[in-house]
Order: sequence, then C-alpha cells, then structure tokens
Amino acid sequence: MHRLIKEMFLKYFSNPVLARLGDSAEITKPKNRIAFTTDGYVVQPIFFPGGDIGKLAVCGTINDLAVSGASPKYLAVSFIIQEGFPFVHLEKICQSMAKTAKEAKVKIVAGDTKVIENREAQTGQQKNGAEIYIITTGIGIYPPFMKDYSLGVEKIKPNDLVLINGGIGEHETAIILAREEFEFKAEVKSDCAPLNQLISDLLLICPRIRFMRDPTRGGLATTLNEIVESTNLGIIIDEQAIIIKPAVKGICELLGFDPLYLANEGKVVIITARTEGEKLLARMRKDKLGKEAKIIGEVVKKPKGVWVRTKLGSLRPLLMLEGQQFPRIC
Amino acid sequence: MHRLIKEMFLKYFSNPVLARLGDSAEITKPKNRIAFTTDGYVVQPIFFPGGDIGKLAVCGTINDLAVSGASPKYLAVSFIIQEGFPFVHLEKICQSMAKTAKEAKVKIVAGDTKVIENREAQTGQQKNGAEIYIITTGIGIYPPFMKDYSLGVEKIKPNDLVLINGGIGEHETAIILAREEFEFKAEVKSDCAPLNQLISDLLLICPRIRFMRDPTRGGLATTLNEIVESTNLGIIIDEQAIIIKPAVKGICELLGFDPLYLANEGKVVIITARTEGEKLLARMRKDKLGKEAKIIGEVVKKPKGVWVRTKLGSLRPLLMLEGQQFPRIC
Repeated sequence: MHRLIKEMFLKYFSNPVLARLGDSAEITKPKNRIAFTTDGYVVQPIFFPGGDIGKLAVCGTINDLAVSGASPKYLAVSFIIQEGFPFVHLEKICQSMAKTAKEAKVKIVAGDTKVIENREAQTGQQKNGAEIYIITTGIGIYPPFMKDYSLGVEKIKPNDLVLINGGIGEHETAIILAREEFEFKAEVKSDCAPLNQLISDLLLICPRIRFMRDPTRGGLATTLNEIVESTNLGIIIDEQAIIIKPAVKGICELLGFDPLYLANEGKVVIITARTEGEKLLARMRKDKLGKEAKIIGEVVKKPKGVWVRTKLGSLRPLLMLEGQQFPRIC
Repeated sequence: MHRLIKEMFLKYFSNPVLARLGDSAEITKPKNRIAFTTDGYVVQPIFFPGGDIGKLAVCGTINDLAVSGASPKYLAVSFIIQEGFPFVHLEKICQSMAKTAKEAKVKIVAGDTKVIENREAQTGQQKNGAEIYIITTGIGIYPPFMKDYSLGVEKIKPNDLVLINGGIGEHETAIILAREEFEFKAEVKSDCAPLNQLISDLLLICPRIRFMRDPTRGGLATTLNEIVESTNLGIIIDEQAIIIKPAVKGICELLGFDPLYLANEGKVVIITARTEGEKLLARMRKDKLGKEAKIIGEVVKKPKGVWVRTKLGSLRPLLMLEGQQFPRIC
C-alpha cells in the first residue's frame, strides 16, 4: 500500500522539489520573513457539495497563511489512513488537492502517510467506513511591502470598518446536509475556496489593512468575539448587511442554530481604516470570491463586546458560544 | 476540551512566536535556503522504554531535517485525539515534547488539535484505549557553509565508507516488547534521540559528507537498499562491525526477524569519502549519541546491490524487504 500511495503522490503532486523524495524538501532562500501554520482535517463526510477533505485541507492552510498577510508558497501533507480505506477515494482526494494547490499557485513539496488499523471494523460491528485524516502545514512568504508591518488585533482602532467577502454559514450547512441525519433536502454548497489571490490583491491596494481572519469553526460571531477579547474595544455589526442564503436560514430555523456561529471556509473578515473601506469593497467585488462583499459593521470604543444592530435598530449582544454546534466540520 | 488543550500548549511550549497564537507563526527571514519535512506518528503503545509518542514525534522530524544537512529550528505540531483520551497522558506527552525540543534547541511555534469520536468505544466492544496521533512538521535552515552544497545519493562514489553511530534495532525491539504480546521479558530501551547536534558537529569538521539518512522503518537494510537503488553502485557491510545488543538478538531469534531490518530512531547512516572516515569516527565517539560509532562498510562499483560480509568472509545479499515486519512502530 505504501508503494502505491507514494506513486500516486508523485503522479498528482509532482514538482521538482517533491520529486527528489529526500528526507526533507529543499526550498530556496526566502526573500522576506515567513509564516508557518499547521492544521488537521477530520471532516465527516469526506465528500460534500462544494468540496472534499482534500480541497478543504489545502484551502484551510492556505487561508490561515493568507490572512496573516503572507503569500502561501509550500505545503507539506501528512495522511493518516485506516486500513481498508478505498483507494479510489484516496485518488479522488489527491486529484482534488492537486487541482486546488495548482489554482492557488502553491506547491506540495513534502508528504508522509501512515496506515493504522481499523479498530471499529475489528469489533465486527462497523457502522462507518474506514477513515482518513489529512494534516497540512504551510509556509508563506511575506511580500516586500510587508517587510516592516504585521497585521494584528493591536492595530485595530475605534471607527474602523468590518468587511466580509460574502454570505455566511454555507460550509457548515453543507456538511450538516451531507450527513443526511435530518429529513431536509436543500442544495447548499460549501464555500470552501483558497483566498490567497483575493487577499493579495487587497493588500496591494491597501498594504496597511489592520487585521484579517477567516471565520471558520464558530463562525463570524466567534471570530469577532476573539477580536474584541484581545482589544478591549467593541464591534457592532449590522444584521441587514449580512447575507444568509435561504437554505442556510432554513436549516438554522429547523435546528435552532444561529447562522452567525456557523463555520465558513471561503470567507475572510477584514478590519480596516474607515477611509479604505469603499476602495477595498470595490476591489473585492471584482473577484469571483468577493462578488457579494459587504461592509458589515464598525469598531467602537463603547459598548465593549460584540453587538448586532437589528432591523429595528436595537442592539443585541453576540456572545462567545461555549461548546461547538457540530463536531468534525473541518 | 479545546480550551484546556490550548492552555496546556501555551504552558509547555511557550515562546514569543507561539504566544501570539495567530493563524500562523511569524518567523524571521532565514539566512539561507530552508529544509521542510512532515511526518505522522501513530506508535502503539504511546509510552515505551526510552520514550513516548511525543518524544518520537519531535526527534523524528528533527532527524529528517538534520540528515539533509539543515539545522532544525521550528516545529509545527498537530494532534488528532480521540474522545476520552486521558488528559494526564496528554500532559505527559506535551512535557516530553517540550523537554526534547528544548534539548535539541528547536522551537514549537504552531499547533492545532482536532478531537474525533472513538468509534470503537461506540460499538460497546472497546478493547483498546482512546488513541492519539501526532503530526510534526519542521523547518530547518542550512548553515552558511552549505550554501552551495546539497548532500545527496548522487554524491556517493565507489570506495566511500559507510558509518553508523551505534547499535541497531533497539527502537523496534523496545516497541515489540512494550506491546507485551510475547512472553519474553527483557530490558531494551528505544534509541529515540535528536541527532541534530551530533550531525551539526560532524558537518563542521567535514562539510562535504556525501549523504546521510536515519535508518527508521525498515532499518539499516532498507536504507542501504534505497541508496544503491538510486546510485547503480554496491554496498558491502561487515557483519562483525555491526553492534546488536543481546536482547535485540534474542527477540530476533525468537520471532525470526533479521535485526538489520528493525527500525532505529536515534541512528544516522553516513556515507563519506574514505579519507574522512577516521576523523568522523573520532568525532562521533566524543558525543554521547555516538560512543559506539563504527565504520561498518564501503561503497563498491561491483557487485551492485547490498551485501553482508559474514564472519567467514563470504558475501550474502541483503535484499529489500517487501511488506513490513510490524505496524505502528513510529
């Protein structure tokens, strides 16, 4: 099995660095400081409308690098695979990873695979298929104009604007629907996408964006709460500015969820000086991943915390959610 | 659980880069080209004489970087943990990782944790405890004197010498014994150790070592076979020069294994010009990880393949082993 996997990786991820297949990949001297991040992906089901575990593993790590302001360049991929995992699925996942990496102009330069036994199958009572987990670790390089600047929550000031590149909650809704645990049919695709090109274009016209984050697990609400927790400021978002697709809304009403807490995998929350808001918005809307971009709120000195301005004009608090709504959404 | 884990990571792995806890770690501009490698660790049992899964995960990735000639600097760590995994074990593993990283002068700068359900437990027939998998990805930086030089199998020439820094088979033997599947009591410790300091000292006195590799899965025999496969040369090793502890020999005799195929986690095979052999050997023996270093063989133009010169002076072929002797040894 190891030999088959090795051959498949070389087939799909082929590039001069990986092809050497040494103990480690050699990367030319970076021109600036680098960003480094790792994430494990255990999403269930592994195939879902809009993506699969492989696409997610590539996009997720690319996005973590991109929101720090770095250009994602190199990925290392580790697979942990249970015995009996269908080879045809593995091939589909690798094809998807290769395609996504190519689109995002990122190279997969190092990899590893471990095969583990399927203990559930050994009990003779297997309810689920063999599993796969993918861990992607990425290296990004900061562009020259970010030589002496780091984005960070400490850059955020009162009166700044909060932007997002489109509607929310689509990834988690797609996963919930793909699990088929509820009698609810709707077509919602995960928004899973690599955001590095969009973000790099935004940094070119506005190299002093204060802060960016991809609102994945815990959604927009959690991301905004994490921001205010470390700044001692407040954020007010406008309920009417936030796009929620009817199917996302429908699922939330049925299951009693708040879409503001649902995970996204192709969204970026941007905090910027008020003077840059319209310029960034216009640039985002030119990108296929930012067509529905919106200014959704502002940073305030008071009240502290995160608040939603409702349609009636009143403020309701948006708290940090304890626990998670659904496991294994990424 | 996520919060507890995050606090524990900060406690044990604390350093200025990790403490920022952004989406990615920022690393100052490297002075030379970099090495990048990833490996998943699924060893079972997770605690064994001489180490644990955490120490192994740190050493393994450090060693993969070190044998390429780079100085390991930064690690990213991903944990995949089944529900119900004892927190006290996780803490012990983190302590061990922190200790090993500190000894090896490597910083853990990025991390992630995913918690997955324990499906075996859900069948009501659990035979084994909840599991943990650790994936470490490392960045190394090549030293200035390696600016224009890469170690590689293509550097190997006939008449070169083959060295190793001590006895073989101890890691895999320790794991087999720790599983307690056989009625055989012996005290064998895994040789699991970070080799970067030793290797860096060797490169300082001999910056043109031809090739290095850590003979992990598949042991010395597999490493040598991989070398000859890509060089079209032969290697003859001297049976009498290879150190095998009595307990390792005993286990092999009982189970019908050849110790040359058993995994090591603190050994490095070095191929060097004959003129450098004695100098490297003397330097290795000064290091606590190289006290029993030996010149164990030589590279030859013919016969091709890997050969063992027996005590009687005859040559027996050492072939590539198909399949693996034991799963989950690393």
